[in-house]
This record gives sequence, C-alpha cells and structure tokens, in this order.
Amino acid sequence: MAKQKADFPVSDIRRYLEPGPIVLVSSAWRGERNIMTMGWHTVMEFSPSLVGCVIASGNHSFDLVRHSRQCVINLPTTALTDIVVGIGNCSGADVDKFDKFGLTAQPSHKVKAPLITECHANFECRIKDDALVNRYNFFIFEVVKAHVAPRPKHPQTLHYTGDGVFTVSGKIVSRRNLFRPEML
Amino acid sequence: MAKQKADFPVSDIRRYLEPGPIVLVSSAWRGERNIMTMGWHTVMEFSPSLVGCVIASGNHSFDLVRHSRQCVINLPTTALTDIVVGIGNCSGADVDKFDKFGLTAQPSHKVKAPLITECHANFECRIKDDALVNRYNFFIFEVVKAHVAPRPKHPQTLHYTGDGVFTVSGKIVSRRNLFRPEML
Repeated sequence: MAKQKADFPVSDIRRYLEPGPIVLVSSAWRGERNIMTMGWHTVMEFSPSLVGCVIASGNHSFDLVRHSRQCVINLPTTALTDIVVGIGNCSGADVDKFDKFGLTAQPSHKVKAPLITECHANFECRIKDDALVNRYNFFIFEVVKAHVAPRPKHPQTLHYTGDGVFTVSGKIVSRRNLFRPEML
Repeated sequence: MAKQKADFPVSDIRRYLEPGPIVLVSSAWRGERNIMTMGWHTVMEFSPSLVGCVIASGNHSFDLVRHSRQCVINLPTTALTDIVVGIGNCSGADVDKFDKFGLTAQPSHKVKAPLITECHANFECRIKDDALVNRYNFFIFEVVKAHVAPRPKHPQTLHYTGDGVFTVSGKIVSRRNLFRPEML
C-alpha cells in the first residue's frame, strides 16, 4: 500500500481538501507521536496555502500539535476505511497508532511530524495563526510542502456524516466548459 | 423541484456539512439579495451549532453578509449542478440570481436572508464571531434554525475540486459497528 508520490504545488491543495474528505493528522512532540482523524477542516487561502481546522482539546493530538506547532494532514482513500475508523476509536494516550495499525511513519521534508506513507497525499503544515485556538480549538495552518500520488487522478475518498456513516466520493462531473476562465 | 422540509436539530447539521459539499449562501441587505457558491467551510462546534467559512471580500455577497450579519447556507444536490455552476460564474452586482436561475426566495424563520426552496436543506445563520473577517475573510456563523428534506436520506451532493470539476457523493459506507458508542 506504500505510494510513490511527487511534489505538488501547495497553492493547489484545494484539489484534495475542498471536497471535504476525512483526513488523518499526524503529529510528534518530545518522543511521542500520534494520528487522529479529522473531519472539521476548510481551505482558507491559495497563497499562502492556508487550512483551518478544529482539533478538540480532548484529543491526545491537541498538545502535540500545539506545542510542536506542526502537523501533517494526510489524505486516506477508501482502501484505508477500517484503519481510519480504528484510528478514530482509540486514543494515542493508550497506544502508538502507527504500530497498532501497521502504518509507516516517514520523515517529512519541512516539519518534524512524520507523514503517513500509505496515504494518497501528505500536506506538511506549520501553525500560521493560533488566535482562535483557546476559544474554538481552531488552528490555522500553512501548508509548507505537499506530496501527492500521481495516480489515480481522482482517488476515492471518505466523507464523514457522523453516526458511523461515510459517503464515498464517486462519479466525476466536469462543467469546465461552463466556467468563465478566471473562475476556474 | 420545490422540496417539503422538516425542522432539523441545529446540533446535528454536521450530517450534511461535514462531508464537504459545495453550498449556496443566500443573503439580503437593504433591498438587495444575492446567492453565492461556497466550498470553503467547516463545522466548528455542535452546540452552539457553529460553521466557519470564507467569503472572499471580492464577492458581491461579502457586504450583504457583513452588514446584515446573517445568511442562509443552502445545500444543493446534483439536480442543481448547472445552476450551481451558473451561480458561481456571474455576479450579483449584475443580475438578480434568484430571477436569473428561477430559484424561489422563501422567507426564513429567524433571519431576514431568504432561503432557497429548491435546495435539500437550509441552515439559517447569524454571525457569531467576526474576529477573523478582516484578516482572512473568515466568518464564524451560528446556525439558528435548520430545515431538511426528509428524503432522500443521503442526497447526492457536489464536492468541488477546482478547475471546473466536481466529485459526486456516491456509495454509503457504514462502519457503525466498529465505533465506540461515545464516538458516534
């Protein structure tokens, strides 16, 4: 399941995150590492490449991210469905999730948090703005490096609805011909 | 295409927004009304029911939302694909988009912005926090009233990837049996 990846422009990551997939956030701090599932995120800017997301303070990852000021946002496909669910249903306070789920912690290029080799894409992030962390657990990250597997072009991703149910991205619909060029 | 809707708990709207669909934002201010497409949004809290989103200041809707401090987030399904694209490719400075696209502006219950009858769900919103509007065009809304069509249970929604291409939500995957009850 290890995927070969290519560098990808950080200003184009909306391609993968704007559709709203569940993602895996990997982090590390002082010898500890962890992975959490995250469904509450949004692209905020192309350049600098900004992503805002909620990491609830009850999560074991919250302190790792807050103290290290870094993380990697990893994009799993449906091939990892049961692992995604497993990661969301145990705590890094009790287990090392890389070991438990047989995932590869690969060194990142620009941050110390490891990226997850088995995911389709990896976005290395640094905290850009923590003004809303205390009030809403809302972190604004800058994506400083992106790695994406070139194929498949449209990976099947998981989109969480709550209650244990995901929708899967399916058919691709292009309406490129109906867009004004500056709106693409 | 007009849909019968039922009241829906505002604390449960992640069911529709967490999967990351493109949505239509309707707003009104001093006799003007408008609709815009929006793909940059995230759920931020269950209760109060909070949604954060980016409305770029270049959009005609920006001032309507900022001054009225209200909007409706409407969820279109694939039945409205070409209308969604059309709305994203013209400006409310030039046209009334309700008229142009034959959409029904229905009075909301708790806000003055109209809701779009033809959408599957409508979430009436008031600005909760505008601390990040100047820096990032990022609005935090509280959903104060929700209306949802009871059927279909899993409507086909559009998820934008940029470049004129959408992915469509398809197959439903339940892993409810693998979740710890408190994680559902």
